[in-house]
Amino acid sequence: MSKKREQETPTSKLKIIPLGGLEQIGMNITAFEYEDSIIVVDCGLAFPADDMLGVDLVIPDVTYLKDNIDKVKGFVITHGHEDHIGSIPYVFRELNVPIYATRLTMGLIENKLTEHGLMDQVRRKVVRFGQIITLGSIRVEFIRTNHSIVDAAALAIYSPAGTVIHTGDFKVDYTPVFGDAIDLQRFAEIGRKGVLALLCDSTNAERPGFTPSEKTVGKIFNTLFDEHRNTRIFVATFASNVDRVQQIINTAYKYGRKVAVEGRSMVNIIDVAQRLECIKIPENTLVDLDSLKNVPPEKQVIITTGSQGESMAALSRMAEGVHRKITIGAGDTVIFSSHPIPGNEKPVTKIINQLLQKGADVIFQDVHVSGHACQEEIKLIYALVQPRYSVPVHGEYKHLKAQAKLAMELGIPKERVIIMSSGDVLELDEKSAQITGRVPVGDILVDGLGVGDVGNVVLRDRQHLAEDGIMVVVMSLQKESGLLVAGPDLVSRGFVYVKESDELLEEARCVTEETIEECLEKGSDWTHIKAAVKDDLSEYIWKKTKRRPMILPIIQEV
Amino acid sequence: MSKKREQETPTSKLKIIPLGGLEQIGMNITAFEYEDSIIVVDCGLAFPADDMLGVDLVIPDVTYLKDNIDKVKGFVITHGHEDHIGSIPYVFRELNVPIYATRLTMGLIENKLTEHGLMDQVRRKVVRFGQIITLGSIRVEFIRTNHSIVDAAALAIYSPAGTVIHTGDFKVDYTPVFGDAIDLQRFAEIGRKGVLALLCDSTNAERPGFTPSEKTVGKIFNTLFDEHRNTRIFVATFASNVDRVQQIINTAYKYGRKVAVEGRSMVNIIDVAQRLECIKIPENTLVDLDSLKNVPPEKQVIITTGSQGESMAALSRMAEGVHRKITIGAGDTVIFSSHPIPGNEKPVTKIINQLLQKGADVIFQDVHVSGHACQEEIKLIYALVQPRYSVPVHGEYKHLKAQAKLAMELGIPKERVIIMSSGDVLELDEKSAQITGRVPVGDILVDGLGVGDVGNVVLRDRQHLAEDGIMVVVMSLQKESGLLVAGPDLVSRGFVYVKESDELLEEARCVTEETIEECLEKGSDWTHIKAAVKDDLSEYIWKKTKRRPMILPIIQEV
Repeated sequence: MSKKREQETPTSKLKIIPLGGLEQIGMNITAFEYEDSIIVVDCGLAFPADDMLGVDLVIPDVTYLKDNIDKVKGFVITHGHEDHIGSIPYVFRELNVPIYATRLTMGLIENKLTEHGLMDQVRRKVVRFGQIITLGSIRVEFIRTNHSIVDAAALAIYSPAGTVIHTGDFKVDYTPVFGDAIDLQRFAEIGRKGVLALLCDSTNAERPGFTPSEKTVGKIFNTLFDEHRNTRIFVATFASNVDRVQQIINTAYKYGRKVAVEGRSMVNIIDVAQRLECIKIPENTLVDLDSLKNVPPEKQVIITTGSQGESMAALSRMAEGVHRKITIGAGDTVIFSSHPIPGNEKPVTKIINQLLQKGADVIFQDVHVSGHACQEEIKLIYALVQPRYSVPVHGEYKHLKAQAKLAMELGIPKERVIIMSSGDVLELDEKSAQITGRVPVGDILVDGLGVGDVGNVVLRDRQHLAEDGIMVVVMSLQKESGLLVAGPDLVSRGFVYVKESDELLEEARCVTEETIEECLEKGSDWTHIKAAVKDDLSEYIWKKTKRRPMILPIIQEV
Repeated sequence: MSKKREQETPTSKLKIIPLGGLEQIGMNITAFEYEDSIIVVDCGLAFPADDMLGVDLVIPDVTYLKDNIDKVKGFVITHGHEDHIGSIPYVFRELNVPIYATRLTMGLIENKLTEHGLMDQVRRKVVRFGQIITLGSIRVEFIRTNHSIVDAAALAIYSPAGTVIHTGDFKVDYTPVFGDAIDLQRFAEIGRKGVLALLCDSTNAERPGFTPSEKTVGKIFNTLFDEHRNTRIFVATFASNVDRVQQIINTAYKYGRKVAVEGRSMVNIIDVAQRLECIKIPENTLVDLDSLKNVPPEKQVIITTGSQGESMAALSRMAEGVHRKITIGAGDTVIFSSHPIPGNEKPVTKIINQLLQKGADVIFQDVHVSGHACQEEIKLIYALVQPRYSVPVHGEYKHLKAQAKLAMELGIPKERVIIMSSGDVLELDEKSAQITGRVPVGDILVDGLGVGDVGNVVLRDRQHLAEDGIMVVVMSLQKESGLLVAGPDLVSRGFVYVKESDELLEEARCVTEETIEECLEKGSDWTHIKAAVKDDLSEYIWKKTKRRPMILPIIQEV
């Protein structure tokens, strides 16, 4: 093969390796590898599943990146949401490579780094839309899109094996609140030159039609503020939805109201957005909560976090009546500018009920639009990009499957539509695309300061404790004689209310004592004594109560 | 006042006392009291809230009925759903009064009583629609309605102070699958004579329009079975929806398929329904699961429980691939004939994802209709009954509030629309309706065989254990000298994975030892030693890990 031919037809393929973010929402992180260059798109966290008791956050296992750290040229971040930037403070303790992101995205990343004392350690570069950065043999272009946060980008990833477009989280908003509409021309231009693969947001792939413009929500605010001229107004929304906050402020200003923001995460994000001029607040409109005292109720708007029913957020504390500054009651209007994320329906409904019981007027339907593309928008991107391969990303399996169906309807042959799992290695070029291997992936659990020290054993124990509580059995054995000199004493927590069950516990104590005496007679060692106590006590309690508390025998040698 | 006048205008008022079922879904039970007669409508259970860890069921506190047992003339049950009959086996261990219900409802009650060995103890009377039973000074008429189970009844409760209509759970189905349509004429007739109060189902009071007829689902089954002639078909639905099962069987028969039913609760209910002729199954259509082996897949239908994502139900086990008889894969079609009940969205989605990943075709939208009345149906009942007072029942606060709004739109003055809380005593007659007092109400938790032995303390402990686990500190003190002769030994469960944290535990042990030695020097008693260990160890662990495991110090005297 001549030198020339080699240059024209690269012998290497591009590898796409999702390290998280498929099968579950959150924890978006995908590696793109060409020969000795790896770039990583996004670095998100996930919130714990219901069975991850006590866990605060979930971050990705980046063993593959650590093992190939010499190849990793940098991280490129599509936008500033937690599921795309949240793991940065954890992952970057161990990886020292630069981060590239647009202005607001970087502002929010820097907020996190400051909080974790990592600002000096991490190299950062703010990128403009249209700019192309070179990272080894891979080049990346940032393309403007729209989403529920300003400065969201799609990425064109150019490798010698071909070009991949990664949409990030996006929607098509022809009339965005801030900045310009998605750069559809650029998608078309790159598409015209030939695109190997499209990695497109699947979140709303089950929904027909178009997602309405963010601006439609602004009109609804105008109507609602007009209808509620005589009440104080609360609006609950996502802390990160800067455009939504902008619209609430616009409407408040129009109706001569002062606005206060409550909830730490929202205050932080608005600060960053203001500093970077991604939000425009008319003078004397934004005040702090304490200054509202001097404003009549019908001239107040309070924007708050907690629209998802989060138990520690501001709205939840107001609904419970335990907020230290604000009491909600008759004469207040509370607008939920959000939809419950699947799984949050119950806590959201609880808050709505509490607010209604306090006498507030609660508006919780149709004051929200999604930040993700519906079917017609997804089809539009496919039509502009015309990729050879379709690789649906960002969604649960059913969402990926729904986009795969759309791609096939648009004429992409079945064998060129690829649904990946986290950890799969997809190798592709013009001639073929195949999953050729696996890399280690997984959920690393963060609990308090501990990263990764809560694993399956600990979770299983927590589950067990949560179900039926614990019964501790303590006994003292004499060193020389091996005789029982104290106990067994039984102490339970989370099992039954003790006063109700003194008899049960006393009988259980007798059962245990018998077991221990039998073991000692036989000369059993401690391991056997513990096992026998566990078995006999467990059986006795099951028979009496049909419950299985954790039994924890402890022997002390005196 | 003359004797005659007394008879015409009763001096007593009727009391309505909901003992559960408001503020939360489930646990429907309402007492109606006139002088020395009490009747009770329904006796349901609730499923535990998310924070009731390890709890199996929730039943109502019936202290008020026990305290007034001489007055209680009987229970009248509207229909056979768990939230209306589920507490009977618990409540009737302590109350010995007769139960009145229609045929299928009684069949399902008897099933429960048999299971709990209570059949001989409870007096039962099957009632026909239109029949009036006399219970002391109160008479009750059963009126036919439609719901997602056959034989549902509304009740006309006649007292000297006036007539109350309780709709039970209902919808208006002009073309029901089994039996007749709701007896609208009778509602009108009673309404014409004058009705004091209407207690109407609020479940769908937020939804405009009419709930479609159950028969519309039958047509959808026909279409789906036609489109999937070459695959095995699974249909997941509610165990108690006998009419739905009837329609699946009808369609299966039409397409020459055999039907098997999987899931204990569904098999039970279909048995009862068959015995009482509330379901009509063509010969040779229903077979047991084992016999399906001899039937080609495209001639099989499997009806299964688990449409709400219940982790122990048949469908969940099939989706996980751990069902002992059935494996689902490519070439199977799974139809969800249900909507997720709020709170169940996540587990339902999990199963859908699992089934799709196994290659099955999954249909989960629009193969269901509700069993509850929407706004237009609620308005129809108000128009027929024309009650003096509106008392919305059956729903969360926001649903009750939505019905209250409808009632006012229909012209009932605000002061005659009464939203009650469980435990409120509403006294009413033609002249007035007022909440005049409270009776004790509450959630009694059932865990295994224990009824009421799990209370707030136990739940709080379980919550604490679930969050951060437990650390047990054991020490032996000598009786005479009071010296520490063994320990402190620290044993943790559900806190951290121990191998990762040997150092932490060793340091924690030292901290504890120091604390104990200090206490012993000062001559502190055991209570103080325990408190000091708790405080110091808790603080140390918080500082090191930002976690708060439960600390349980145990002192043994040797």
